[in-house]
Amino acid sequence: MKLTILGCYAATPRTFTNPTSQVLEINNHLFLIDCGEGTQVELRRNKIKFSRIKHIFISHLHGDHCFGLVGLISTFRLLNRETELHVYGPKGIKEIITLQLKLSKSWTNYPLFFHELNSKEPELLFEDEKVTVETIPLNHRIYTNGFLFKEKPGPRKLLINEIMKYNIDVSLYQSVKMGKDVESNDGEIIPNHLVTGPPEKPMSYAFCSDTAYYPEIIAQILNTTVLYHESTFLEANKELAAPTKHSTAIQAAQIAKDAKVEKLILGHFSTRYPSIQLFKEEALTTFPNVELADDGKIFTF
Amino acid sequence: MKLTILGCYAATPRTFTNPTSQVLEINNHLFLIDCGEGTQVELRRNKIKFSRIKHIFISHLHGDHCFGLVGLISTFRLLNRETELHVYGPKGIKEIITLQLKLSKSWTNYPLFFHELNSKEPELLFEDEKVTVETIPLNHRIYTNGFLFKEKPGPRKLLINEIMKYNIDVSLYQSVKMGKDVESNDGEIIPNHLVTGPPEKPMSYAFCSDTAYYPEIIAQILNTTVLYHESTFLEANKELAAPTKHSTAIQAAQIAKDAKVEKLILGHFSTRYPSIQLFKEEALTTFPNVELADDGKIFTF
Repeated sequence: MKLTILGCYAATPRTFTNPTSQVLEINNHLFLIDCGEGTQVELRRNKIKFSRIKHIFISHLHGDHCFGLVGLISTFRLLNRETELHVYGPKGIKEIITLQLKLSKSWTNYPLFFHELNSKEPELLFEDEKVTVETIPLNHRIYTNGFLFKEKPGPRKLLINEIMKYNIDVSLYQSVKMGKDVESNDGEIIPNHLVTGPPEKPMSYAFCSDTAYYPEIIAQILNTTVLYHESTFLEANKELAAPTKHSTAIQAAQIAKDAKVEKLILGHFSTRYPSIQLFKEEALTTFPNVELADDGKIFTF
Repeated sequence: MKLTILGCYAATPRTFTNPTSQVLEINNHLFLIDCGEGTQVELRRNKIKFSRIKHIFISHLHGDHCFGLVGLISTFRLLNRETELHVYGPKGIKEIITLQLKLSKSWTNYPLFFHELNSKEPELLFEDEKVTVETIPLNHRIYTNGFLFKEKPGPRKLLINEIMKYNIDVSLYQSVKMGKDVESNDGEIIPNHLVTGPPEKPMSYAFCSDTAYYPEIIAQILNTTVLYHESTFLEANKELAAPTKHSTAIQAAQIAKDAKVEKLILGHFSTRYPSIQLFKEEALTTFPNVELADDGKIFTF
């Protein structure tokens, strides 16, 4: 799993800070999450191949999470894209984009599909053999979803030293990996647990931004490998977090702790603070494994 | 007159080139012309005070001329703007912006006025004591206007050595500057032409982008001080200019020559060429006073 932060600052794009957008690479998919103004330039700067992006997930319709979408969709067209593009986002997103394409007489020359969301329950958005993506309903000023990206459990691990003890045809190894008991050349049924170990722990990534402190998400993101949780404010400005439905660093850490995640990444920083290190220091008082997002930063898990 | 180029490249924003946007300072107004994606960041980079922008002119609804508008309008709101903002642009621009503000529940807290355009004849958009702004209907793939910014003629120049010959009360000098014949303290009527010279030549700026070669504009922009004319292509790619309704550098120069402007600024360059100097070299074969726009470049007239 590889996460590239294109932008992780709150509110407006500035000379040296970008609004929210990130690319998650998982099992050969490149999933784009949110698309603030300037995202297409940040994709170029980070040398991410446009044609590999086939799915874009938009958390909510505040500008710092979606104003770059129409430009990206238009640029794909100018680059003569042919690949399908799927956009998942709140109801209304289709009208926003299609109105602008219509008025500029710039309809796309590639298949563009909108998947509009309005459920307040988690929904499965994408599934293939190896990965699922589902919504995480959040609590913000307008309808907002986080997204949970999960690897499916892979094949069981062959215990080579054990399987060699039995006269099992190599053509059956794939079935063994799938957890099946197979028959050896000696006519013996070999119980799977004797020759395999458990599969590698599947990885998962939960993106939760923007949201107030919202413990209702904990059950859904329990034991997630990596949680990206917004922390717009420090505890000193807690009184701003509640009415704007944002979180503090400590609230994000509390969610990470209660959800027993392995790692917490903080992002969506207000630019009012002199250093984002302050967010890490605060969160570390509550949860031990904290990283800071930053524009252009790459995390590999 | 001061012109700041925020972006002057065609099609899509790239790591080091911005789509169209520029700020014209004329008689204490800051007029923003076009607003491609990233304009608000370029305004910051060029240290242009947001609150001084009260009028935004959008030539047409192709993304490279307007995708930054909704972000700028939203940022004004986050900065607690109180000043009026007037947006002039093609019919549809109001719906694009208001739909996004509505869906993000982010209505502006300052007065925002849209002036939607659909006339194919020149229209007066703005007028005060010193300046007028009118549309220049252009010929592009969708409905497009250029904009003509004109200073009104100022007061006549007092010829101090001449006026001292007459016994004219100083309180009448203002009337003299306005071109009036006044009565001297000796009861004599002094013809204005004896004591004044013609006013300074008023300056004017014509923004013409995007457009095919379109000689119909010449009468309207005749004798303009500065003409900014798009030159997306070089003559070698003339066959691309006609169907896309863009101009070559030589076509822009031909318009400048026929309109007898003082200076031509070329812009809206396709990024396919190794150097924008090539545009200048071509244009100079047809018109002698050519400048190249470039992102961040400032022209003072």
